[in-house]
This record gives sequence, C-alpha cells and structure tokens, in this order.
Amino acid sequence: MKKAAIVMGSDSDLGKVRSAALTLKELGIPFEMRIISAHRTPAEAADFAQNAEKNGFGVLIAAAGKAAHLAGALAANTVLPVIGLPISSSTLDGLDALLSTVQMPSGMPVATVAIDGARNAALLAAQMLSLCDGELRERLRALREKNTQAVLEKDRKLQDELEKILEA
Amino acid sequence: MKKAAIVMGSDSDLGKVRSAALTLKELGIPFEMRIISAHRTPAEAADFAQNAEKNGFGVLIAAAGKAAHLAGALAANTVLPVIGLPISSSTLDGLDALLSTVQMPSGMPVATVAIDGARNAALLAAQMLSLCDGELRERLRALREKNTQAVLEKDRKLQDELEKILEA
Amino acid sequence: MKKAAIVMGSDSDLGKVRSAALTLKELGIPFEMRIISAHRTPAEAADFAQNAEKNGFGVLIAAAGKAAHLAGALAANTVLPVIGLPISSSTLDGLDALLSTVQMPSGMPVATVAIDGARNAALLAAQMLSLCDGELRERLRALREKNTQAVLEKDRKLQDELEKILEA
Amino acid sequence: MKKAAIVMGSDSDLGKVRSAALTLKELGIPFEMRIISAHRTPAEAADFAQNAEKNGFGVLIAAAGKAAHLAGALAANTVLPVIGLPISSSTLDGLDALLSTVQMPSGMPVATVAIDGARNAALLAAQMLSLCDGELRERLRALREKNTQAVLEKDRKLQDELEKILEA
Amino acid sequence: MKKAAIVMGSDSDLGKVRSAALTLKELGIPFEMRIISAHRTPAEAADFAQNAEKNGFGVLIAAAGKAAHLAGALAANTVLPVIGLPISSSTLDGLDALLSTVQMPSGMPVATVAIDGARNAALLAAQMLSLCDGELRERLRALREKNTQAVLEKDRKLQDELEKILEA
Amino acid sequence: MKKAAIVMGSDSDLGKVRSAALTLKELGIPFEMRIISAHRTPAEAADFAQNAEKNGFGVLIAAAGKAAHLAGALAANTVLPVIGLPISSSTLDGLDALLSTVQMPSGMPVATVAIDGARNAALLAAQMLSLCDGELRERLRALREKNTQAVLEKDRKLQDELEKILEA
Amino acid sequence: MKKAAIVMGSDSDLGKVRSAALTLKELGIPFEMRIISAHRTPAEAADFAQNAEKNGFGVLIAAAGKAAHLAGALAANTVLPVIGLPISSSTLDGLDALLSTVQMPSGMPVATVAIDGARNAALLAAQMLSLCDGELRERLRALREKNTQAVLEKDRKLQDELEKILEA
Amino acid sequence: MKKAAIVMGSDSDLGKVRSAALTLKELGIPFEMRIISAHRTPAEAADFAQNAEKNGFGVLIAAAGKAAHLAGALAANTVLPVIGLPISSSTLDGLDALLSTVQMPSGMPVATVAIDGARNAALLAAQMLSLCDGELRERLRALREKNTQAVLEKDRKLQDELEKILEA
Repeated sequence: MKKAAIVMGSDSDLGKVRSAALTLKELGIPFEMRIISAHRTPAEAADFAQNAEKNGFGVLIAAAGKAAHLAGALAANTVLPVIGLPISSSTLDGLDALLSTVQMPSGMPVATVAIDGARNAALLAAQMLSLCDGELRERLRALREKNTQAVLEKDRKLQDELEKILEA
Repeated sequence: MKKAAIVMGSDSDLGKVRSAALTLKELGIPFEMRIISAHRTPAEAADFAQNAEKNGFGVLIAAAGKAAHLAGALAANTVLPVIGLPISSSTLDGLDALLSTVQMPSGMPVATVAIDGARNAALLAAQMLSLCDGELRERLRALREKNTQAVLEKDRKLQDELEKILEA
Repeated sequence: MKKAAIVMGSDSDLGKVRSAALTLKELGIPFEMRIISAHRTPAEAADFAQNAEKNGFGVLIAAAGKAAHLAGALAANTVLPVIGLPISSSTLDGLDALLSTVQMPSGMPVATVAIDGARNAALLAAQMLSLCDGELRERLRALREKNTQAVLEKDRKLQDELEKILEA
Repeated sequence: MKKAAIVMGSDSDLGKVRSAALTLKELGIPFEMRIISAHRTPAEAADFAQNAEKNGFGVLIAAAGKAAHLAGALAANTVLPVIGLPISSSTLDGLDALLSTVQMPSGMPVATVAIDGARNAALLAAQMLSLCDGELRERLRALREKNTQAVLEKDRKLQDELEKILEA
Repeated sequence: MKKAAIVMGSDSDLGKVRSAALTLKELGIPFEMRIISAHRTPAEAADFAQNAEKNGFGVLIAAAGKAAHLAGALAANTVLPVIGLPISSSTLDGLDALLSTVQMPSGMPVATVAIDGARNAALLAAQMLSLCDGELRERLRALREKNTQAVLEKDRKLQDELEKILEA
Repeated sequence: MKKAAIVMGSDSDLGKVRSAALTLKELGIPFEMRIISAHRTPAEAADFAQNAEKNGFGVLIAAAGKAAHLAGALAANTVLPVIGLPISSSTLDGLDALLSTVQMPSGMPVATVAIDGARNAALLAAQMLSLCDGELRERLRALREKNTQAVLEKDRKLQDELEKILEA
Repeated sequence: MKKAAIVMGSDSDLGKVRSAALTLKELGIPFEMRIISAHRTPAEAADFAQNAEKNGFGVLIAAAGKAAHLAGALAANTVLPVIGLPISSSTLDGLDALLSTVQMPSGMPVATVAIDGARNAALLAAQMLSLCDGELRERLRALREKNTQAVLEKDRKLQDELEKILEA
Repeated sequence: MKKAAIVMGSDSDLGKVRSAALTLKELGIPFEMRIISAHRTPAEAADFAQNAEKNGFGVLIAAAGKAAHLAGALAANTVLPVIGLPISSSTLDGLDALLSTVQMPSGMPVATVAIDGARNAALLAAQMLSLCDGELRERLRALREKNTQAVLEKDRKLQDELEKILEA
C-alpha cells in the first residue's frame, strides 16, 4: 500500500496538524511526518516531492500558514496529488493561508481543505488512496457509518434531555 | 478505467466548466457531464452520489456558484473523493462559492481548487485516478513537461523580442 | 397551532442556539429541537424536511457553521419557509457560514438572520407563524413594547447616574 | 388574502427589484410597489410600516443598497415579517448592503436573502403567506416541481449534445 | 455654547463610548448622553433628532454596532452634522458597523470615525463646534500641542532607555 | 463666510470629486479646489493645512484613493475639521482608501464619508459651516425638503406606471 | 553597476509588468526580464535565484498573480533583496496575490509593493541599488523633483480652468 | 556603515517592533529607534526623513497600525528605501494597516512586509544594506544557513519522537 506524507512548514504547526496523523493511523494508512519549509529548506522540499513517488508515497499533505507556499512548492515537483491544509497562524485567521493555497495557477492543482481542517486532509488522502484499495474503501465506509450513528445518537439524546438542557 | 464525473449546478456554469471536460478528454479519461442541482434536484444529487461508485465513477467534480452546496451534497453521499470547483457567478466574485465549498465540517472533505479553476479540477481528478493507472501517470508527466517547455520557450522569445516589446 | 423546528448541524452549536428555544418557549410556540447534519446525516435531513409539513411544522430554523449547508438542504426539500442561522464556529468568525447560508441560488430562498442571532431566528419564526395567529401577533407586540420600555428605562437610568458613571 | 409590499429605497434600484414583482404576479399574490427611503423620507417609512398591518399587508420586502437601512427601519415599526433584499449599488458589490441588512441587533429580525436576489425575496414572501393559504402553498409546490423538471430537462439535453458542445 | 449629544444604541456600548464623554468634559463642552435605539425606540430616535436643533444641540454623535443604523436614522431627521461611531460588538470586529455607518446614500452624510474611536468622535465634534467658538479652538490647539509634546517626550525616553528595553 | 477647500491627491480623481464642487456652488459656499499630494507634494500639504485657518477656510475636504493619506496628512496640521473622501481608484474598489482614511489613530479624527461619496462630503462640509450660519442652515433644510419631495414624486409616478413598468 | 531582474510568472502578466521595465530604462539601470514560473519551471526559479548574485544582479523583482509564490520562491534561494509585485489576475482583484506575497514567514522577507504597482517596484529597486550608487541616487532625486513639479503644475492649471471644468 | 532607523508611530507598538531591533543588533547593524508619529508629530516625521540621508541612515523601517501613514509620510520626504511594517493594533487585525502601507500611489514605493513581521523588516533592511557591504552579506548568508539547519534538525527530531508525539 502506498504511503501518505504529512509535511508541515514549521514545527509550530504540529498542534494543528496532529489529528491528520491520528486519522491516518486510525485508518491503517502508513505515513511519514516531516517538517520541510518551502522557504527555509527549499531544496529539501523540491527533493522530497521529486522523489516522493519512487519512495512509495501516493499522496502528499502539505500544511502551512500565512503565505502558505508549501503545497504549491510540492505540487510543482510531482504529479502525485497534493492536499493543501491552510493553517491559521497569522492575525488574518488563515484567510491568507487559504488563498495562498487554493488560488493555484492553471496546470498545477492543489486539493485544498478547510482552514485548520487536518482531519479532513487525512480523510481526503484516504479517499484518494482507496481508489485502488478496496479494503481501505470499506474502512472509510465504516468510519462514515460510525459518524452518522454518532449524530443520530446525539439527536436522540437531545430529545431525551431537552427539558433539562433548556432549564440549565 | 474508472470514469470521472463533471457535475454542475446550473447550465449557466457551462462556459466556465467546459475546459474541465476538454482536459479530461485530452488525457483520455472517460467522463460524464451532468447538470444536477443540490437545491433544485436534491434527490438526483443524492442518488447520483450514492450510485457513483457502482456506476463506475472514481472521482466526482462538482462545480457551483454562490452558496455552492453541490460538492458538499455529493460528498455527503459517497466516500469517493469529490473535487469542488467554486464558480464566480455572484457579485462577490466567487468568494462566497469558495468559502461554501472549502470550509467543510470535520469528517466530510471536499478537495477544493481555485475559483473558476476548471482545468485544475480536471488535472486533480487525473492525478487521483493515476494512483492506480501508471499510463495515465505517464500522460500527466508528459503534459507537465510540455507545459514546462512552453514556459521556457516563452521566456526565450521574450529575451529575443524584449527591445521590440518595450518600444511598442 | 403549527410547530417550529430548530435544527442544528452539530451538538457543539447548542450553546449558541439555545436562546432560540428559550424565545419560542417564552412566546408559547410549540417546537422540536433536533441535531441533523446536512453532511453526516443527509438522508435524515431530506426526510425531515420532506415530512415537516405533514408532521405539523410551519417553519424551520436551521443553525450551522463553516460551509453551512443545512438551511439550504432543508429548503431544497420543502416549500415551508426556512430560516438560516449562521454560527461562528470557524476561524473566519461566521463570515463563511453567513455567505454559505444567504447567497442561495434563484428559486430557493433561505431567510437569513445575523451571525449567532439565535433569538432573532426565533422571533422571525414567530412573526411568520403569527400571520395566521392573531394571539401570537399580540404576544409579539407585547414583547416588542416590553423591549422598548426596557430601553427607555435604561436611558432614564443613564441620565440619573451619568455623573457617577463618568467618574467611575 | 393578505398583500405583499415591495419597498425600494431608490428608483435606481427598480431594474434589480423588478423580478420580485413579476414573481408575486406569477404566483397570484396581490402586492404594492413603493419607493420609500429610510433616509430621505423617514416619516413615510415609519408611517408605512406602522400601518402596514391594518392596510392589509402580511409581509414587507425592503430593497436597498450601500448602508441599507430600509429593511431595519420598517422592521422597527411593525411586527410583520420583513424581508431584506440587499442591492449591489456601490463599489463594494453589495457586501455593505448585505451586512447592513442581515446583522440586525437582537429583538429585531430581518429575513435577508442573497445580494440582488429579488426573485428569492418574492418566493420567501410567498412561503410566509402560504402558512395560512393552502392554495398558494400548492402553487409554490407546482412552481418548485416545474423548476425541478426544467433542470432535469437541461441535464438530458446536455447529455444529448455533449459532443457538439465540447467541439464548439 | 451649543451642546453635543452622545447617543448610543444600547447600554452595552457604554464601556466603549465612555471616553467620548470624558473628552467632551475635558474640553469644557456641554453634552447629554442618551440611550436611544434606531430599532427598539425608533420614534424617540426620530423625535430626538428632529428637536435636537431647537433643544440646543450643535452636533450629534451616534454610536452603534452590527447593522449600525443609528447615525443614519438621526441624520435622516436633522440637518445638524451627525458623527457616526461604529462599535465592534459582533463577531465581525466592527466591519459590519463601519460599512453600515459610512456607506450612506447620496444626500445624507454621516461623518464616520474609526471603529471604537470614541475619543476621535468627541474631538471631531469639538472641531465642528469650534467653527464658531474661538476659545474652544484654542483649547483644541492646546490639547493638540500637549499630545505632540507627549510623543516627543516618549521618544526622548525611548532613546535614554533603549539599551535597557532591548535587554529586557 | 468661511471657505471650504476641496483637495484631491491627483488630477485623475477629478471626475469623481467634481460633484462636491457643484454641490458647494449650489449651496452658495465659497470654496477653492486644489491638487495637493500627501506623497508627491508633502510640504505643500503641510503648508496648506497649517495656513488654512488664517487663509479663511473653515473646513477641508480631502479626496484620495489607494493608501489614502491625504486627509490624515491635512488633519495632522490643523485643528479645523477635515472630511475624508475615499476614492475607488485601485483594484480593491476603494476598500483600501476607506480603511486608510477612517481608521485614524486616537487624537486625530477624520470625518469620513462613503467611497466616491463626493456630494455627501460637500453636504457634510455645509452642515459644519452652517453651525454658525443660520442662512446656510436654511438652504440645507430647503435642499433636504426638495430631495424628500423628489422621492415622494417618484413614488407617486411608480404607482401610476406600475402596470406599464412590469410589462416592459 | 549591479543589474535588476524583472521576473514574471506568466507571459500574460507582461502588460501589467511592462512599466517596471520602462522605469528601470528611464533611470539607466541595466536589467533583464524573464518569464520563470514558481510552479511550471521550479528548477529554473531556484537556479535563477541561486546564481543571481554571481550573475551580477543586485535586486530581483518578482511579479505574479493568484497564489503568487514567485517572490517567495526566489527569496528562498538568495539573500539578495526580492521585491514582490502582486498582479490582479484572478476574480479576487489581486487580494489573493497580495496576501500570498506579503505574508511571508519569519526569516524570509519579500519587499511587497501595491497590487499592479509595477512602476513602484522599479523605483524601489532603484532606491535599493542607489545605496551604493550616488549618481543613481541623484537621478532618483531629480525624478522625484520632476514629479513634484508636475503636481504643482497640474494644481496651477486646475486653478486657472476651474470655472470651465465645473461648467463642462 | 550606514545606519538603519526603526521608527514607530506609538510607544504602544514597542512590544511588536522590538524583535526588529534585536535582529539588527544580532547582525551588527548600527541603528536608531525612534517614536515619531505621522499625525501627532508630522513636522518631526518630515524633518527626520529629509535629513536621514545626511545623518547617516541608509534605510528606514516604519512601524504603524490602523490607518498606517508613517511609512508613506517618511517615503514622501526621502529617496532612501522605506520599509513598511504594518502593526495589528485595531479590531481589524492589521488588514487596515497592511492596505494603508502597501497600496501606495505610483511614484512613491514602500517596501511592505507581513503584518507584525518585525524580524522580516530588519532582515530586509539588512539585505538592502548588504548591497554595498560584502561582510554583512556573508553574515546574512550564515544566518540563513543557521535557520535552514534548525529546520532540518527539527525535522530529524520529529522523526525520532513521532511515536511519542502522537501518543501524547
């Protein structure tokens, strides 16, 4: 099975990126987690992306804040799908990271998820990898079903406790 | 080979979505193109997404403007990867469609591309499908190389004609 | 008398939605409160809206954050008026939820209130229901008058205590 | 049957408001159309709203651009539901009108629709009035069904002509 | 000497408006401070503005948040200059209040100051009143000079303590 | 009678500023119109503001686009009231000019009007000058009344021609 | 004398970048103009920046639109100063390019100028190069003086023709 | 060696500007730090900029918040390069300061860095000064290399401790 990579631009992003790793683990997807900066270690970024395919990666997740170039820098050096995860690390609440990640020029897509949406980045990676992995597809379906049941359960609980909740 | 779907919320989006179809064709990816509205034909939207996998689709592209719910409505009904293509069809220049598409809640990713980025939506779909299709991967690599050469050629031409250009 | 529904996309919205329930209660309007997600329980959302009319509902309030599709998803499945309540649950302070809720395409209105404006959502529901309920109309008028008097009273108090306030 | 009012702040808004009137007409809803400015004719605005109920109105649509106070000014003077229609008449593309209309303080809701969403304003008014008018409800249902069929028809046509469209 | 009025839409704005009162006091300008809501007490708002001139007011300051209509509602009922003070009381950090206050339609100006700029609102009122009050003009000049000296003094102090500050 | 000044940062703003001059003329207010740039002729800007009072000016209107510093530069050099008129001359539609003009630091107010709101800038100047000029006050009142009548007249005309308009 | 480089991400930016070249020419600064894409020719971008110093460049201007990574990609590969010129080439009017260019992470500055501010990018490059070139400094001073005189001349002309202009 | 100046508009900015001074110190660049306000001490601002060159300065850093005019006010009075550092000191999170600083009119560039990007402002100043100072250039290169190594080291550490981190 191909691996996923979680690359973050700075170790200060780790707290917001962590749930991507936990989600991949939960789904049994092998992955590596790296700190590579598009600006401070540009050679490593290019090198990592250029060799990602032959190193067994199937999809790359790139997490970065502010003028978030990491996802684009990886995408420029591979034809593997790259998932962009904009991080809210400036005073602009991640709007800068979102636009820097999603508004890619024609020819060079980045699959962008919500600001700080680390879990969704991992789920999207899993959906991609499941295109050639029927078992992973089934695990995704099971996880989806579990989430659905959790909402239904919370709904039932709300009905039961409504009076109490409104009086609280 | 699995098919791609290009679903648009309104026939008025066709002009901006067309290049997605042309790109898939250029890459030899079988696809269907549909008009399905998350709001005006919600049952069809749910039905289409629920049956997409067994109907041979591997990835869905959803193009919509304004409060762009189409990508999310499809994503809610399949575990296939869904690509969101925000269309600039309101006075807000697509910012509404971008936020409506990308800011998905945890558990339900949409792989969002740039506003009006139809060609990138198709290329992203191709990158995903190429995860289990080595030949498609090679076609993507060749297309990438062709684009690189085109930029290099334009750069050379600019050097040659610089004097003329600046005098024009 | 027809019922109002307060539907929220996630139990984490409860704290911000609660005052809608208290306001309906204060006005003597029967209501149900539900957790239904446009994305995690889409079938329930469609089903709830399709049967809302025959289940005795007259108006639906839908509260959701981020790419807030819930109001639109309900509106797509009923001709009852749907009130959209955008919740500020992302780093973007509810601007994403506001645009996702209000910028609906032609043919499918959502009556949108202010970000986190739960009390106003309930008052708007009451105004709608009062179109065929003269007594409710009178209760709304009385509540309005009470609010007016409260402002006038605060104004008088400010005059009395101005010196003290400015010295504090 | 109660009437709807379409009030606009300036005659320059008429082009963008017109489809609200045509939609009410199409649905057989009696209405009046007025030019009343929250700023240039404030006494008329207050007077109109205060007497709207006894003059046979059931719902008021208020269309205004820029610092769009009209809907709020009407809402302050009636407990009838007021629909706010933000018009894009400044360089800010209607974002100013949207925020001025929707961000109402607690106690005074305005049911806001999309920027320049005149048809939706009328449909929302119809949904409200249909709360005590079963026949209008049926006409809304029929209109909804007609719109659904129109999308399905466009989808079929796209399938038929896809080859031709992509070659064009 | 003509009075200034400080009108706020809600008593919850008092904390942010207080420095306007203190500034007027510091400059020896007689003033009244009122809580009048454009929406909850619209008749009082119209009445206050219509009678402001004959009640001895020369300028009105209107402080409000969210869809801040108060300044516009006063301006619609007087030809006295009205100063709009947008208050940051929603999740949108006062951007809604700023646009609702400043983007007034042609014919009806509101002199808008910065978000939460209460002291500036008072200084602007003083500048206006000083047009026919030479002594007030001199007091403004003295205050300006005092502020200038304070900056110069802080600059000198920074030079003296720079080493210490950078080591801290 | 004191004069008003209309200062613009560039001759390219003339088309958008022109109506300020026409309005002052209509109201019989003496004025001068100048091109002075905060950046290209800073000495002239400081000099003009420092001498404005003794040169007979009572109020200054400053029109500028982009990083619109002109109003602030004048305000820094006089205690006369300065009206800021943000001009939409960049790709950002005047939002940059609005924020650069209105968000002044404490101690230095600029009375800001709407983006491209030249007529309102002039009316605000007139309101200020009328604080010590009863006749001008009356002319403002008459102009206001005329505008009110114009709206009422347009409203009557709309009633008369509604059928025709809707059929057009 | 060291050279300046004008690098643009796409030949479609040429029209908006051209005045940078004309300005450098006007100031007698040797320069090269290149099309290099951070995404389509990333190796060339890295290579160009890494060798810029030894190839005789003193400063680099990077013009790009949308998710404008070019300036950052160059800055990551040189310690020469890099000037970022955001281009308005998407529906978002250059706001995306501005944030992608200016919001650089700590350690890696980009000297950003206004959206589409090509002439200013060249002038800033000249200011930098003039730090070790007294003659260039004098040419800049002369150009500045010429611009100042041009504004003064336009101001005089406006005075002379004011009557005519207002009647036009 | 030429000096750098760090000018801030208010002593309240000191906390956010401090790291610029520490960075200059770290690089051995002589500098002065001043509090000069474009609005409260405009004469000092003009004077400082006009004499900066002859007082031995090579580059000026201007830090200001809200309607941040300081950088522009300095740039208007010198042909030395001016670096603009927007400070987030209003409710708008520095967006106002960014636009007020970067959107300068043609002819008058300001080299703008990220909101609160004090360290980058200092590094950019160093890059400019290093144009005629080979030793400073080497120190910049060494600092860059140090930063690169720090990221690589953090990356290695993350690999070593990944298991532990994910379990934490």
